[in-house]
Amino acid sequence: MTDRRLAGPVRIVGTGLLGTSIGLSLTARGVDVELADISPASLELAIDYGAGREAQPDSQPQLIVVCVPPDVTARTVAEQLRDFPNALVTDVASVKVAPLRDLRALGADLSRYIGSHPMAGRERSGAIAARADLFIGRPWVIAGHHEISYGTAAPVEQLALDLGAVPIEMTAEEHDRNVALVSHTPQVVSSLLARRLTDASDSAAALAGQGLRDTTRIASSDPELWVQILRANAPSIVETLRAYRDDLDEVIGALEAPDAAGSRRTLAESLAGGNAGVSRLPGKHGQARHFSRLIVLVDDKPGELARLLTEIGEFGVNMEDLRLEHSPGAQIGLAEISVLPAAEARLVKELESRGWKISEALA
Amino acid sequence: MTDRRLAGPVRIVGTGLLGTSIGLSLTARGVDVELADISPASLELAIDYGAGREAQPDSQPQLIVVCVPPDVTARTVAEQLRDFPNALVTDVASVKVAPLRDLRALGADLSRYIGSHPMAGRERSGAIAARADLFIGRPWVIAGHHEISYGTAAPVEQLALDLGAVPIEMTAEEHDRNVALVSHTPQVVSSLLARRLTDASDSAAALAGQGLRDTTRIASSDPELWVQILRANAPSIVETLRAYRDDLDEVIGALEAPDAAGSRRTLAESLAGGNAGVSRLPGKHGQARHFSRLIVLVDDKPGELARLLTEIGEFGVNMEDLRLEHSPGAQIGLAEISVLPAAEARLVKELESRGWKISEALA
Repeated sequence: MTDRRLAGPVRIVGTGLLGTSIGLSLTARGVDVELADISPASLELAIDYGAGREAQPDSQPQLIVVCVPPDVTARTVAEQLRDFPNALVTDVASVKVAPLRDLRALGADLSRYIGSHPMAGRERSGAIAARADLFIGRPWVIAGHHEISYGTAAPVEQLALDLGAVPIEMTAEEHDRNVALVSHTPQVVSSLLARRLTDASDSAAALAGQGLRDTTRIASSDPELWVQILRANAPSIVETLRAYRDDLDEVIGALEAPDAAGSRRTLAESLAGGNAGVSRLPGKHGQARHFSRLIVLVDDKPGELARLLTEIGEFGVNMEDLRLEHSPGAQIGLAEISVLPAAEARLVKELESRGWKISEALA
Repeated sequence: MTDRRLAGPVRIVGTGLLGTSIGLSLTARGVDVELADISPASLELAIDYGAGREAQPDSQPQLIVVCVPPDVTARTVAEQLRDFPNALVTDVASVKVAPLRDLRALGADLSRYIGSHPMAGRERSGAIAARADLFIGRPWVIAGHHEISYGTAAPVEQLALDLGAVPIEMTAEEHDRNVALVSHTPQVVSSLLARRLTDASDSAAALAGQGLRDTTRIASSDPELWVQILRANAPSIVETLRAYRDDLDEVIGALEAPDAAGSRRTLAESLAGGNAGVSRLPGKHGQARHFSRLIVLVDDKPGELARLLTEIGEFGVNMEDLRLEHSPGAQIGLAEISVLPAAEARLVKELESRGWKISEALA
């Protein structure tokens, strides 16, 4: 394959999930990849998977990608900068302020370092979970700073593009604040909500609907991994969580005295603020999310959902999103389908004419 | 149709979303339904939709279903008990303690009243949004008390079953505590999280992933409706929110001093508590959720997802759940498919042999 931007060779230090996935993808594109890991077993596994070849003492990499845990990232980057004085070095740690600060303290050559963070794949770890397509369509943050020139940093953007990711440039501070807001705080909020269910009665659990399921889905994440992530970005997360707690205090206050003056208004503003916040999220292809949603009843037997989607395709309607919900205790599924508002009326008519039952259309 | 349990006639008071939906469904099953509403326009609309006939002065209903807003529920139930001394009366308000208490204070005949709460359809209101199949597969709480006999209450369970709902019996206190936990608190938590995004930068919004989308989905709900719901169940919600805030304070404390003794443990316990809570939620058909999940890459063009699902059906694998995720900026979708663990390995093999790209398999 020749559809690549990187010249190579690329040296990957750390053959866990991210390092091995990067190696697999670059190797598939014909980039020369050399691998290094302090664990010979990990290294051999990644080589067996086809993620690259073993690094040689005289290697001259164009780009070094450090894929080690956050607590050893800065030290490892500094070593690579020292050992390979002609190479550009990046890392993929999920926090960006601390490594840059630590490298500065170590006196590292920051004219050849730029940090990055692919927003991808964390549910399993190790080379065994690696996939060449892990980064396709995912945002890849490049944490710019002033001590490196635009031209020198270019291969990191080429790396992201070669892996199918979408490069997004921001400072380390912006990155850490942003992921605190869109990733780390949601994790805390969801885990703490789910924690309230620990002692839930069976009768409470029986009433759980899709809203609760959605809100607590990421609460299944790996605690050990998340303790590391939360600690590494603690200052930014605390800032967001404190603002969240202030809002929560207001709501609790309003509910403690629901008939007091201003209580209705506090609740209304909290809920309306939620509406406004959701509207900030980009949807498919970066569009804002203004889709019409239909719920179609689907018999719970193999092939029914496929038949529904085939027919929607036959009408020429492009589905923007799809969710399947099983009602507890029922032999039926509810398919929630999002389409452009202009297509809604026709889709409803076509589906009903073919005998599909459409439950409530959602605002 | 004769597959019904209720004898009828059934009188429905209040022809909004729930009242009209109940009328449509019962009428379709051949139950005689009479409708009443203080708004003649609402009433005529519901009759036009086919939800029932206009109530006559000499009517003798078997069962009366009061479907009016929570703040007028008790008064309306009391009037119906007085006006129809041979009828059983129920209501569908989303809180159950307050109406029972108010009826007791009014000296109403509680030997003919039992409250209920269908956990269904709230996104739009009015007869115009009504659907006969709104209740299919949904839990329908029946709030038992000691002043009514089992035999007298039976038609309310028949009502739920005739509508395709799943009757679940609990006390009014249990109900209000349970919905505070599984519905009202998640709404507050999600709205307040989404509210933090109000001033999010574009660069933060660009990093938003599926986790944040899931956690904030219900934050799109109607603020006016939710102000009413939260106020009506304030004491139970406050109890849950206070416990939630205590946990949040612990996490904030741990992140303010991430290197202090016990800080790691506090974070780990919070996150592990979330794991434990999620495992309390029932999955499809009431099973606990222990599915294997695969992510399959699907080209973002009409018909591709249908083709995938058709092929999965051909392998004889039953999909337990499905989600579709569009990556921002990418012309590709990620279909997250849940199957029984025993089916996972074969499905991966079959899909890969047909050229589908499977991204990370999730734990």
